[in-house]
Amino acid sequence: MLTANRARLDGEIATLAAISEAAAPAVTRIVFSACDLRARAYFKELAHSAGLALREDAVGNTFARWPGSEPGLSAVATGSHIDAIPNAGAYDGTVGVLGGIEAIRALQADGFVPRRAIELILFTSEEPTRFGIGCLGSRLMSGSLDASSGSRLRDQAGSTLDEVRSAAGFTGPLETVRMAAGAYSAFVELHIEQGPLLEREEIPIGIVTAIAAPASLRITIDGEGGHAGAVLMPQRHDAFLAAAEIALAAEAAAKATGAIDTVATAGVCEVFPGAVNSIPSRASLMLDIRDIDGMRRDSVLRSVDASIAGIAARRGVRIATELINADDPASCGPAAIEALREAALSRNLLHREMVSRAYHDSLFMARIAPVAMLFIPCRGGYSHRPDEFASSQHIAQGVEVLAEALRRLSSA
Amino acid sequence: MLTANRARLDGEIATLAAISEAAAPAVTRIVFSACDLRARAYFKELAHSAGLALREDAVGNTFARWPGSEPGLSAVATGSHIDAIPNAGAYDGTVGVLGGIEAIRALQADGFVPRRAIELILFTSEEPTRFGIGCLGSRLMSGSLDASSGSRLRDQAGSTLDEVRSAAGFTGPLETVRMAAGAYSAFVELHIEQGPLLEREEIPIGIVTAIAAPASLRITIDGEGGHAGAVLMPQRHDAFLAAAEIALAAEAAAKATGAIDTVATAGVCEVFPGAVNSIPSRASLMLDIRDIDGMRRDSVLRSVDASIAGIAARRGVRIATELINADDPASCGPAAIEALREAALSRNLLHREMVSRAYHDSLFMARIAPVAMLFIPCRGGYSHRPDEFASSQHIAQGVEVLAEALRRLSSA
Repeated sequence: MLTANRARLDGEIATLAAISEAAAPAVTRIVFSACDLRARAYFKELAHSAGLALREDAVGNTFARWPGSEPGLSAVATGSHIDAIPNAGAYDGTVGVLGGIEAIRALQADGFVPRRAIELILFTSEEPTRFGIGCLGSRLMSGSLDASSGSRLRDQAGSTLDEVRSAAGFTGPLETVRMAAGAYSAFVELHIEQGPLLEREEIPIGIVTAIAAPASLRITIDGEGGHAGAVLMPQRHDAFLAAAEIALAAEAAAKATGAIDTVATAGVCEVFPGAVNSIPSRASLMLDIRDIDGMRRDSVLRSVDASIAGIAARRGVRIATELINADDPASCGPAAIEALREAALSRNLLHREMVSRAYHDSLFMARIAPVAMLFIPCRGGYSHRPDEFASSQHIAQGVEVLAEALRRLSSA
Repeated sequence: MLTANRARLDGEIATLAAISEAAAPAVTRIVFSACDLRARAYFKELAHSAGLALREDAVGNTFARWPGSEPGLSAVATGSHIDAIPNAGAYDGTVGVLGGIEAIRALQADGFVPRRAIELILFTSEEPTRFGIGCLGSRLMSGSLDASSGSRLRDQAGSTLDEVRSAAGFTGPLETVRMAAGAYSAFVELHIEQGPLLEREEIPIGIVTAIAAPASLRITIDGEGGHAGAVLMPQRHDAFLAAAEIALAAEAAAKATGAIDTVATAGVCEVFPGAVNSIPSRASLMLDIRDIDGMRRDSVLRSVDASIAGIAARRGVRIATELINADDPASCGPAAIEALREAALSRNLLHREMVSRAYHDSLFMARIAPVAMLFIPCRGGYSHRPDEFASSQHIAQGVEVLAEALRRLSSA
């Protein structure tokens, strides 16, 4: 009988959460920061103790491999990420990484001998905080982002991805990160739901059948600055007020689809020069627009574009819009979904099919392998905030279903 | 004949502008920063060279005195500030400080012997950048801000005014900054207009009869964060969208008075946690609302308050509003206005009366002395931005009118 060691796993999650740039309970762990490197070292220590063979690629994706009895077969993979946006929680991503180790240890303790190798992947920069684009590691691995575009990415300090990864010890051509389709026979990711459904319905296991299609935009507004007392209202070209209107237009456009699955968020707004008595001459905004229906999401993008044109004309400001990414939704692989369903059934756990509105490395892994995702409940559906929480019991149930599914997929 | 030495004054303005935290042509000089202290040292060097006696008070207001022949009489004062908001220009404030020295040198070169002492004042922190409140030096000097409230002010790093001024070398009880009404027989401030009127009408000298009444507000919005993909639109309590609505409501309220003199500005907006895929849980906004009519300005404040209550209720966010200051407008002193008018006439310079929409240390000096202000044109009316510009000729004309007015006021 496969059993997760709850106390051990809880302790490891707590240890990892403490490696943070923010004060507890908040977790901040930006890719290639000192905290990220310390967290990676902790992961490698755990993987090494579990007898797994470690490999790192040029962008820092880290692979911990449990060899199979038939080395000629493609491996089964699982994994997630350990980077965290500013002021986030302890469970997003980390449950899939530390839970992946625990699943392997449970299989080992049960005496299982894998036919296909089982590989646990720690993906680099699932969060877009540093380079403005999420799932950097899995994008490069799946060819969704080509190496030359990747090399041109810069962080807010102006450093290129190549400079930053080299400083973190990850060198070599970025081209080598890419893996061929078929490199894995399946990829299964364990993750907290980041939504309220499972908790509300008291269902411990969600099996994801599709992953929503995110798009993100960087919008830069150039208006005209001036003294807040002296420039009269009709003469103004206030960049921040244009940004405010764009953010509200994005909200209205998302609501206007009438579909509950359409969401739009302005999570970043910066105002320059940022003084109480100075009219903003420049503002920048980042928008995140998602839907499980790619065409409907694109209709929201077009609506926001039309609003922007109107705002620019009416306020006499220049607005530059950069589409950072507009990814296609992904469907999960039937065999991988089936393995998760059988695993949940074998453990007598209630489960339901659902879609993922958050996006994940699985979205990109789907381009080179059949994927499936396994969700566990999180309190209130909260994520990306310090009070993010998943119970020890739910995590252990997720790990055990993951282990059971890996057993089936590895034996197939 | 009084004559300003244009080349010398231009050189001194350029030298002062180069003492900046921002790259030229931008000037950033935050109160008590290393740049501010270097700029103060430069001012004291110039004042010392002009034979003026220096005194500094507990908050760093600096007084350069040319003694009069009748020491029992109250002095005539002039002056302005040298601190600059982020990314500002070279003329705001500095024309009144360096121009004040040049006016005194012109009077000295002309052989004038003052009856009343002439005192040039460099005021501390006219700009609100560091402590959130403008005219710190003149507020304390005039008793518009009491010493105990002043001591409690904190900068964004959490340091108190007392800690910061002590570190800059300004010690002693803050109470000692206050001066009695009647300490000066008149105060005259030379300043760039920071508006387009004089340039448009090709009038070199503006004589200010009233100074607008500013109010500023700090607004903090607490909503609910969460994952930008997972939290559906109807469940959101987005703090930034509430801030966006408040900024637009302030704009609408200012326009709704129908008076050209009403202005409202949201110059600062900060969003937390500030990640593209995270719903803002907190936002803060600073509003600046001004009018030459204090009652009309207060009606805008009430209108904004009503909007805030509606936004808080509709979006389910908590909004805290702090009124940082709501000052009364000031009227200038008839005798000081008359001295400026006679000075302009004596030099055959076109002049007009006008109001100041920007506020100045004169607003607070008006509580302890009859004040007047002397405006010179600035290009496009631009201020608080790097391309702020006043011509050498206009500056010299302003200095010469100031000197002539000081001669009359000192002799009275």
